[in-house]
Amino acid sequence: MPPISRDYNTHCRCVQVESRIIPPDSLRSIKLFPEGPHCPNIEVIAGLASGEKVCLNPRSSWVKKLIQFVLAKQRHPKTQA
Amino acid sequence: MPPISRDYNTHCRCVQVESRIIPPDSLRSIKLFPEGPHCPNIEVIAGLASGEKVCLNPRSSWVKKLIQFVLAKQRHPKTQA
Repeated sequence: MPPISRDYNTHCRCVQVESRIIPPDSLRSIKLFPEGPHCPNIEVIAGLASGEKVCLNPRSSWVKKLIQFVLAKQRHPKTQA
Repeated sequence: MPPISRDYNTHCRCVQVESRIIPPDSLRSIKLFPEGPHCPNIEVIAGLASGEKVCLNPRSSWVKKLIQFVLAKQRHPKTQA
């Protein structure tokens, strides 16, 4: 798994992206950071069941599918305010 | 803006979702939490430029569009390892 170093790179969060596919079951969160003055790249950081955080490539089709999967996976629709 | 209370609700993070549209310029991050044993709902929490964190409705079409917008917005494509 690639390191996420805030010290090494004070602008972007990701120094390397994970190329292996993350199984949805081991996924606990996905955080998207739009590009901005701090970093010219979109950054996608997955939180895993193991507690690890790994950077994903936002241009990978499997990463886009993973995000769609998370958004589509609601099994118990509930009306929210 | 709705509260995000960890004390009030120890399972789900969001007690209410924001209905107003978040302008992309004020968005600093979007975090997606898949449904799981802790919470039967998908939760989407936006971090704003103001420092606020607001819960969004993952079933709103504008929320899905916002996520697509963030993923599509890469202006400086760069090959990442």
